[in-house]
Amino acid sequence: MQYKAPLRDIKFVMHELLNSTAHYQTMNDYAHVEADIVDSYLETAASFAENELSPLNQSGDAEGCHFSNGEVTTPKGFKEAYKQYCELGFTSLTAEEEFGGQNMPMSLNSAISEIIGTANWSFGMYPGLSEGCMATLEHHGTDEQKQKYLPNLIAGEWTGVMCLTEPQCGSDLNLVRTKAEPNDDGTYNIKGSKIWISAGEHDMSDNIIHIVLARLPNAPAGTKGLSLFVVPKFMVNDDHSLGARNAVSCGSIEHKMGIKASATCVMNYDGATGFLIGEENRGLNAMFTFMNVARIGTAIQGVTAAQFAFQGGLAFAKDRLAFRSLDGTKAPEKPADPIIVHPAVRDMLLTTKAFAEGGRALIGYMSQFADTVAKGEGEAQEYANQMLSLLTPIGKAFLTETGLEAAGHGVQILGGSGFCTEYGLEQNVRDTTISCIYEGTTQIQSLDLIGRKVLGSQGKLLVNFTNVIQQFCDDNKDNEAMEQFITPLLNHIKQWGELTTEIGKQAAENPEAVGGAAVDYMYFSGYVTQAYLWARMALIAQTEIAKGNSEHAFYDAKLKTAQFYFTKLLPRTTTYAQRISTGVEPYMSMDVEQFAF
Amino acid sequence: MQYKAPLRDIKFVMHELLNSTAHYQTMNDYAHVEADIVDSYLETAASFAENELSPLNQSGDAEGCHFSNGEVTTPKGFKEAYKQYCELGFTSLTAEEEFGGQNMPMSLNSAISEIIGTANWSFGMYPGLSEGCMATLEHHGTDEQKQKYLPNLIAGEWTGVMCLTEPQCGSDLNLVRTKAEPNDDGTYNIKGSKIWISAGEHDMSDNIIHIVLARLPNAPAGTKGLSLFVVPKFMVNDDHSLGARNAVSCGSIEHKMGIKASATCVMNYDGATGFLIGEENRGLNAMFTFMNVARIGTAIQGVTAAQFAFQGGLAFAKDRLAFRSLDGTKAPEKPADPIIVHPAVRDMLLTTKAFAEGGRALIGYMSQFADTVAKGEGEAQEYANQMLSLLTPIGKAFLTETGLEAAGHGVQILGGSGFCTEYGLEQNVRDTTISCIYEGTTQIQSLDLIGRKVLGSQGKLLVNFTNVIQQFCDDNKDNEAMEQFITPLLNHIKQWGELTTEIGKQAAENPEAVGGAAVDYMYFSGYVTQAYLWARMALIAQTEIAKGNSEHAFYDAKLKTAQFYFTKLLPRTTTYAQRISTGVEPYMSMDVEQFAF
Repeated sequence: MQYKAPLRDIKFVMHELLNSTAHYQTMNDYAHVEADIVDSYLETAASFAENELSPLNQSGDAEGCHFSNGEVTTPKGFKEAYKQYCELGFTSLTAEEEFGGQNMPMSLNSAISEIIGTANWSFGMYPGLSEGCMATLEHHGTDEQKQKYLPNLIAGEWTGVMCLTEPQCGSDLNLVRTKAEPNDDGTYNIKGSKIWISAGEHDMSDNIIHIVLARLPNAPAGTKGLSLFVVPKFMVNDDHSLGARNAVSCGSIEHKMGIKASATCVMNYDGATGFLIGEENRGLNAMFTFMNVARIGTAIQGVTAAQFAFQGGLAFAKDRLAFRSLDGTKAPEKPADPIIVHPAVRDMLLTTKAFAEGGRALIGYMSQFADTVAKGEGEAQEYANQMLSLLTPIGKAFLTETGLEAAGHGVQILGGSGFCTEYGLEQNVRDTTISCIYEGTTQIQSLDLIGRKVLGSQGKLLVNFTNVIQQFCDDNKDNEAMEQFITPLLNHIKQWGELTTEIGKQAAENPEAVGGAAVDYMYFSGYVTQAYLWARMALIAQTEIAKGNSEHAFYDAKLKTAQFYFTKLLPRTTTYAQRISTGVEPYMSMDVEQFAF
Repeated sequence: MQYKAPLRDIKFVMHELLNSTAHYQTMNDYAHVEADIVDSYLETAASFAENELSPLNQSGDAEGCHFSNGEVTTPKGFKEAYKQYCELGFTSLTAEEEFGGQNMPMSLNSAISEIIGTANWSFGMYPGLSEGCMATLEHHGTDEQKQKYLPNLIAGEWTGVMCLTEPQCGSDLNLVRTKAEPNDDGTYNIKGSKIWISAGEHDMSDNIIHIVLARLPNAPAGTKGLSLFVVPKFMVNDDHSLGARNAVSCGSIEHKMGIKASATCVMNYDGATGFLIGEENRGLNAMFTFMNVARIGTAIQGVTAAQFAFQGGLAFAKDRLAFRSLDGTKAPEKPADPIIVHPAVRDMLLTTKAFAEGGRALIGYMSQFADTVAKGEGEAQEYANQMLSLLTPIGKAFLTETGLEAAGHGVQILGGSGFCTEYGLEQNVRDTTISCIYEGTTQIQSLDLIGRKVLGSQGKLLVNFTNVIQQFCDDNKDNEAMEQFITPLLNHIKQWGELTTEIGKQAAENPEAVGGAAVDYMYFSGYVTQAYLWARMALIAQTEIAKGNSEHAFYDAKLKTAQFYFTKLLPRTTTYAQRISTGVEPYMSMDVEQFAF
């Protein structure tokens, strides 16, 4: 499928829904980021994604990465596309100016990531991982480390990767075993194996900077004994030129369901030289800088999946002929009507559209808080941090799960063609499946939401947000046209609080209850969060329609998609609430041995 | 994953839930099919599936089928396995004795198909398609045609295929264009192309018998102008030896998301010689013989997907360590607890278990009606036909959709390992995705259910079934232990009727309403159907536990799975009902042109 960037809708979210210019003006660093600057970046990204990356999406999947003698070859065209990506300045977008960066906001980067990622998610993984490495170095590296690594990373000459997972240790980082022994010269000797290291080895850059989680001798057990190390593939001389090859090597790459053009590496550290970043035994804290950004980045994958399914499904549904509308022939000149006339097809199309556009809005909303966390000050920064803490697990889990659902609808709309590789819709499912797993599974995110964020703050983080929704409802209570949205929103924020109390009560009796309710609570929270954003979008649409805006079709479609969301998707909350009410017992009553066949 | 056939549960369904011996005794043809005969077939199938087919499942996926110069090569080992399959008598199981068949019931065949299909769905496609061809010939062929083709088909020396779909024509067979011109000798000249022909060409049998849907000259437009033809790959001489190659050839095979070891062929008929089966222009009616059997066969794929996900997920969940139980350490001797202690993992495991076991019960229930349709008489046959008519679209759509959902849980339970090919769980998703599409998509099945079956019978077919459920509830109304199942069942059959009336009312105002409600109604119907079967299974479990049956763990697990189903899965009906109540307008309000980005 040839991708076309949904620029009109991206600009709607940035400029009309989220008033990005006003938002940027609240921070000195970003005050100069006017709308025309934003648009110019978006258009450059769109053109690059449509013309260079989209054509490599299916070929990259078919070819995959190749591994031979410790070297990884990326699919044809990837290396050249990456060079252009660097030349267009995308690697330096959000980095500090001191080291060659452009110091642009995260929220602009998120919009660009969606464009790049919908065209070719596998490609975007390589620079995406670099961003995590750069953020970690910027926040926790010494001046010397920053000087040594950041300029070439920012320029894209080098890439970076994050190395957490080990064979025995995925979600639970308590189990990390990789060792770091101090050398006499202040460096460390790193020994161990990491798996599932995206972009751990490849042929697109001159050096690869590994950020490795490992244990010092006599470190405390568990996550409080983890430290973080920079381990370059090639040692870096004082003049930034490349020195000897470090003892870090790729042992193999995984054969995977999807994102086949992204190299997923087993990395072996056989006495590699590493340099401590940040404090000893505080590696996990330093890692969180990367994790929050990475989780928004992964949440974006859900939006890309929904957008891709919508685009592919829509083209097919307008073209493919089957049966006549039950309401009478719609295309008498053709042997049958296009399938977009059928309600069941429209249901799937509207679901993909609603998840794509609602997800885009949520990514923008979260990313603005991330901007303020990065560059804001005082109370605004603290408030943004709290809002982002609540929204991150919702965004990560909900948007990837709904993105995967949407990807499935994309296949189903195409029927047998969806199952054939040539249309690209099945690749979308395969590529997206990982989004619900990496950077914290749906289940882990859900536990983070109800456990750490909501109950852990005694409800404060939730109340922050429901106050925002309540305020919106109050502001629009006399707007009759908004009643269809305001009434269900009010009911849902009330129920959100009640469910939280209910889970708290259940947990007082049985500590497992939090785990039992977590995923349902996440979905409930996600649907309400989306409902709030859809209500805001509907208000804008109604206002523009009333003003006689010349883009009537766009705003009317937005309004009708909001109505579809409220009548057909929001009712899913009922089931989640019912499931929570029956508690954890139905999960726990069976003995482990009784799980059998 | 090494497959292990769930023989205990298959026997539970056949003997304890569905009293197959008593059922078979209602028909002369099957009166001799005692339980030990059933078990012996099941055990043979299990051993063959576990030892021969399961090891070829992942290798077959990795290797796929190869196409060269019109010939299709199946993956390594398939040809040899097929030979054993024939030798074990599986190709002749349900066929008439007159031509070498064993005349065994469809319901036994269904259980065997689950076993074969869970081990290796792609493999099972080849003989599965033959069954459709044989059934069509048995029911609609002339004596000469039966004599000519059936013996070798039944022995498995030849295979058969069904050829409906064309490039412009998938769900909507009105659009078939393949032509059949009469020749002077009473044969027909077949010209056209068919696509997505599973097993259309391969290297496992000496001849391939194509059943082709085509149009005679001057035939009426639409499906009332379709006739059915036998088109053998090699002409068959009077002594059953093979003659000249017919003008039927494979043009290419599809590259697909899954079932890669099953050859999906483009078949070209370039003036091939065909023989009319049945009456002119009544081809679609003759095809329905095949379609109903094929739909049960496809519904079984959903059960295989759920069973496979359960087996793979369970092994991993008992083995993989991550975090401690929120309720206190469960495996103090290990660095972390196995993930099966966590409620969110149990939720996914129990969902796969409930869909597998509930789906198996529904397949058995449907298949017994199919037995009676085939060999019963009088009112019993007519009643079975009505029940099967209602249950077929439910079984096909609901079991494949829930099977696909379960397959997704299987991947998610394994996390990153689920995404890697080596565990086989991601293949399960890829293989199963097609089940919601072929033999009538979920959307088409749903329309068939509410439109043709329920509203089309003025509700009679539904009342048949709700009467059965009502009777079960009445029979157990004084059983206190069953109250947890009976009350929700009664509520649901009441609501099922109300929703039907509601849709009828909506349709009186807007004919699109049937299409708008169809998929939600199918899911609602599926969950209630499963609830009925789970309640029956719970009753058996309670009875055996009360009797002090030595297999306490088995029956207790069955009971707890029923409780899980009623508390955690059945509540999904609430959302479907709510969605139906908001009608079709939210799907139809947007103009086609407004679907844009």
